[in-house]
Amino acid sequence: MSNEVVLLSAYVSMFGMRARIALDEKGIQYEYKEEDLSNKSSLLLQMNPIHKKIPVLIHNGKPICESLIIVEYIDEVWKDKSPLMPFDPYKRAQARFWADFIDKKVYDSGKRIWATKGEDQEGGKKEFIECLKLLEGELGDEPYFNGENFGFVDLALIPFYSWFPTFEKFGNFNIEKECPKFVAWANKCMHKDSVSKSLAEPNKVYEYVLKFKQQLGLP
Amino acid sequence: MSNEVVLLSAYVSMFGMRARIALDEKGIQYEYKEEDLSNKSSLLLQMNPIHKKIPVLIHNGKPICESLIIVEYIDEVWKDKSPLMPFDPYKRAQARFWADFIDKKVYDSGKRIWATKGEDQEGGKKEFIECLKLLEGELGDEPYFNGENFGFVDLALIPFYSWFPTFEKFGNFNIEKECPKFVAWANKCMHKDSVSKSLAEPNKVYEYVLKFKQQLGLP
Repeated sequence: MSNEVVLLSAYVSMFGMRARIALDEKGIQYEYKEEDLSNKSSLLLQMNPIHKKIPVLIHNGKPICESLIIVEYIDEVWKDKSPLMPFDPYKRAQARFWADFIDKKVYDSGKRIWATKGEDQEGGKKEFIECLKLLEGELGDEPYFNGENFGFVDLALIPFYSWFPTFEKFGNFNIEKECPKFVAWANKCMHKDSVSKSLAEPNKVYEYVLKFKQQLGLP
Repeated sequence: MSNEVVLLSAYVSMFGMRARIALDEKGIQYEYKEEDLSNKSSLLLQMNPIHKKIPVLIHNGKPICESLIIVEYIDEVWKDKSPLMPFDPYKRAQARFWADFIDKKVYDSGKRIWATKGEDQEGGKKEFIECLKLLEGELGDEPYFNGENFGFVDLALIPFYSWFPTFEKFGNFNIEKECPKFVAWANKCMHKDSVSKSLAEPNKVYEYVLKFKQQLGLP
């Protein structure tokens, strides 16, 4: 089988970072195409006509959309190297549960920190820290969420770490002080090449958010 | 392996219906426990402390939450009968994509039809019909979403059919007139025992929504 792999993504997107880490974990060669989200390419609109969002993985001409679905697809097609999903069905269900939790709760509360002010922002900070504490509890004393090896939940979660300084600047708080165990886990993940080379530089995330807020006219 | 299976659910929940159809497709004996959503049981709070939502599948004492995750779990554990997920990784990714689309777009637009009025409600109706038309396009000329056999996307989508009369009464529109092909697919699904015995009676859904709106003080 030929393997022509293209990734449409955007540098600062935590969802795009997930796909990049997964591709790198599996050692897959691919062409990376950066999308300008204020002027989306015709290829993106053609490959994801429903949501018109990145990331999109194009494998031998066929598109796969939505970051967690992309990661499961990569794990299923390139199954011989670095399995990301646990083998046990119950552990798989748990991994999917936490990844879904990250999409629903961590993303939303994080966004409220940089996109709102006042009460909304305070609520976002509170919920964000509560989420990280729940995740710390789930991690327990293991090195990674699935135990000894970096896996699906680690991969779904670690891209948020590149946004932490942005959350901290807008929210005027210190995440490590609140959740030291979480940050220790994140630093361990950062020692992996697949992670460190896929995550955006935090100052570039901050600059992007500043500019994006100006474009949207947010205070 | 012993198989003690309990389902915590609520009669009118489309998410709960998914779990019931999956259990029935696989021929799994289980204990059904109806939850009063205005007075949740301590078992539910203990089994789903994060979201405190139904459905929860309890398999040999261990909880699995979130309906699509429950269905994938059931499909993976009881894999010998009535496979729900396609075998091909690309088709699996597509099935997950459409199930996610149903959760995000069909559910939200449907809710706007019964929970709002005026412009919001009209927007909900328009988006709901657009969603069904997209799904009609995806179905194409096949009997089911994955081809010849009832599968994951059919199962994720068909519970909404029991809410159609409620949407129609609140939205004052006729879904079959707009999407005859969709309704033909739904009627075919209804011929399956697993579906017909798992779906709520439409008039009970309507009564529930009327009462629920009163409780919430919605107009």
